[in-house]
Amino acid sequence: MIDIKKKIDEANAKAVKILIEGEPIWTGDKRLIDVVPDLKKNVILHAGPPIEWDRMANPMRNAILGAIVFEKLAENIEEAEKQILSGEVKYAPCHDYLTVGGMTGVTSPSMYVHVVKNNKFGNEGYCMPHEGGSFKGFGWGTNDNETITHVRWMQEELSPVLDKAVKLAGGVNVKQIIARAMQMGDECHSRCTSSTLLMTRLLAPYMMELDFPKDVIKRVFEFLQKHDIFFLHVIMAAGRALVDPAKEIPYSTIVTTLARNGVDFGIKVSALGEQWFITPSPKIKTSFFSPKWNDDVATHDMGDSSITETIGLGGQITVCSPAQEYSLNGNYESALQKTMDSYKISAGENNDFAIPNLDFRGGPIGIDIRKVLQTGIQPTVHTATAHIDGGFIGGGEAYAPIEAFEKAMRAFAEKYKIAA
Amino acid sequence: MIDIKKKIDEANAKAVKILIEGEPIWTGDKRLIDVVPDLKKNVILHAGPPIEWDRMANPMRNAILGAIVFEKLAENIEEAEKQILSGEVKYAPCHDYLTVGGMTGVTSPSMYVHVVKNNKFGNEGYCMPHEGGSFKGFGWGTNDNETITHVRWMQEELSPVLDKAVKLAGGVNVKQIIARAMQMGDECHSRCTSSTLLMTRLLAPYMMELDFPKDVIKRVFEFLQKHDIFFLHVIMAAGRALVDPAKEIPYSTIVTTLARNGVDFGIKVSALGEQWFITPSPKIKTSFFSPKWNDDVATHDMGDSSITETIGLGGQITVCSPAQEYSLNGNYESALQKTMDSYKISAGENNDFAIPNLDFRGGPIGIDIRKVLQTGIQPTVHTATAHIDGGFIGGGEAYAPIEAFEKAMRAFAEKYKIAA
Repeated sequence: MIDIKKKIDEANAKAVKILIEGEPIWTGDKRLIDVVPDLKKNVILHAGPPIEWDRMANPMRNAILGAIVFEKLAENIEEAEKQILSGEVKYAPCHDYLTVGGMTGVTSPSMYVHVVKNNKFGNEGYCMPHEGGSFKGFGWGTNDNETITHVRWMQEELSPVLDKAVKLAGGVNVKQIIARAMQMGDECHSRCTSSTLLMTRLLAPYMMELDFPKDVIKRVFEFLQKHDIFFLHVIMAAGRALVDPAKEIPYSTIVTTLARNGVDFGIKVSALGEQWFITPSPKIKTSFFSPKWNDDVATHDMGDSSITETIGLGGQITVCSPAQEYSLNGNYESALQKTMDSYKISAGENNDFAIPNLDFRGGPIGIDIRKVLQTGIQPTVHTATAHIDGGFIGGGEAYAPIEAFEKAMRAFAEKYKIAA
Repeated sequence: MIDIKKKIDEANAKAVKILIEGEPIWTGDKRLIDVVPDLKKNVILHAGPPIEWDRMANPMRNAILGAIVFEKLAENIEEAEKQILSGEVKYAPCHDYLTVGGMTGVTSPSMYVHVVKNNKFGNEGYCMPHEGGSFKGFGWGTNDNETITHVRWMQEELSPVLDKAVKLAGGVNVKQIIARAMQMGDECHSRCTSSTLLMTRLLAPYMMELDFPKDVIKRVFEFLQKHDIFFLHVIMAAGRALVDPAKEIPYSTIVTTLARNGVDFGIKVSALGEQWFITPSPKIKTSFFSPKWNDDVATHDMGDSSITETIGLGGQITVCSPAQEYSLNGNYESALQKTMDSYKISAGENNDFAIPNLDFRGGPIGIDIRKVLQTGIQPTVHTATAHIDGGFIGGGEAYAPIEAFEKAMRAFAEKYKIAA
């Protein structure tokens, strides 16, 4: 037993080192089909672990159907549904294609995605640009004309402008922006105000060098101005690029994925590769934007954005963002407590992501399933809440269900012949 | 005595209410001479209380001479000095002309200033745009060609662009930006990263509507990108616009001005109008940017930027900015302690400037000279350090000298016939 403990500790130290040493650089925006060439044109990606059509949350179904129309694979939503039921169009988890997606996570082959390269290890991660914090969006599970028109605008103006500006900038160092934003009230999941601002200011001079007319650039600036959350999806792509090299390390009990599809919650663990450990997705503790909404109309926890917690951000570092905690009816003390809890379930500390309110102590990184099970501390996951019929209705937090970690531990014990 | 105490408390409550209720709106940038018409073209403004030429700090003398050349009142520095000595060109405190200036505070008639209007009371305050955080600048007390050329660029491109963008935006609500920036790691004096970012993103779409060529706008964006401190001078102009209506309230012991010229430190107190209470300017506790600099080559505390502490920002709310405190070798605990001390010497709390780390408790506002003298707590003032021969060599903090408050209290006691 001492031998196995040592092996695990060493493997975890290696996994944490890989997570810390990654160098995620946003290199531009490209169409998903161009960066994931083995993706077929009739496959739509979604967040979280795989799920059957009839068990799927409404918002995710809505968004998949909308994306089929967006892709011009169908004329309308009804036709799109027929294509899904007939199997003409398929769907699969983003996670199967080096991608992560916010909320429903719906991303289709011709959509632009942020491309983030991990310069240390050479791999890439992808995430569709955030549609913004309005009520509607494929991410929030709507699929009407307004939703589709907005996503088309993102393809026609937003991503092409960003792509060229990012390239002129020689790429954007995502880690540097995260590190600064953590000194500026961002926990880099639900609150990305500062990272979005830093990105905007960084790219602004380069945008002036582009051939696009001023009114196109103006619309891009206006969009960035309205949507503080925009940079989250760059961070998510970076998260994906950071975790992949830490997968498949023999004996490592470090979590490499936390993801939800609104019905199921799934985790992956380094030593266990791409295997999902799945359990029902938890209810979200939501601050609703209007009293007309409540838990009865709230989809359960959904989205791949918990990749941020996987790399030590978001709910893992709540004390960076008392404003965020306050919006969820917490206070400084509870934000601090949650962060101290995160240290208890993490294998390491990341000095690159230092916490100002803790005298720049490195943030917790590398959730260890052993520590989760020993302490009973469920990782806090910041999240947004979608209406059960689609639409963005609140922000909140959820707690990763212990059962997923138990299942992973059983599989781990079996694999390594340990008495669990 | 009970009667006078009541009168003072009531007067202070009134002064604090005026400070809190002000509505500072940045309306654009205009030439100083156009907004302060009683200013003569041969008068150069400087920071702090009035001072004789031969007692003046070198950086301030340098900058005044540079500004004379900038104004084309002289061909070169030597000629400029002759004009000062002959009285052909004069100098006066910014504070005499509704203006405040950073560090040397040198501002000349044709220079653009930020115009901030207090919409609640109708008055305006002015401050020259920040030259940036480079080594050189009139503010830092250099006066070579590079310094002058940069300030000319500010007149030709920076201010005209900002002026028009601000006007298109319908003005910029300074209080709103301060309030948000306080949730994002700014104490809004030495650290203005977030406010500068918020300003940049707010104005960016409007800049796209201007007739200026893209390369001009590009240079403006590049400047804003390099200089996190830029928005400070808008906040300073707002500070000036906020304090003026709180002046000359009979019986009020609230500080309406804290200002330094590098040699003297001066304060003004509401009931005592525009009278200065002057004492030697303190040494700064500096974090130098290079080991080649130390206290021996550091100018004492200088500049009108302490108008920010006068309105409850900067050193009064250190806990908003642990990163700033850390850069001065402090920690979270010391930042918290200083803020709690600020409450002890302040007459009120400003819910518009709420502190996230204190569960959004309103920040301290309205320094009461009685409380300073009762507690012995010297108001903390964040500041920058200039080389004794000019140049930006560090950041730091100073403590407002008790003697200035004692002098003010003696004058107050005399005015109201109280046994001091």
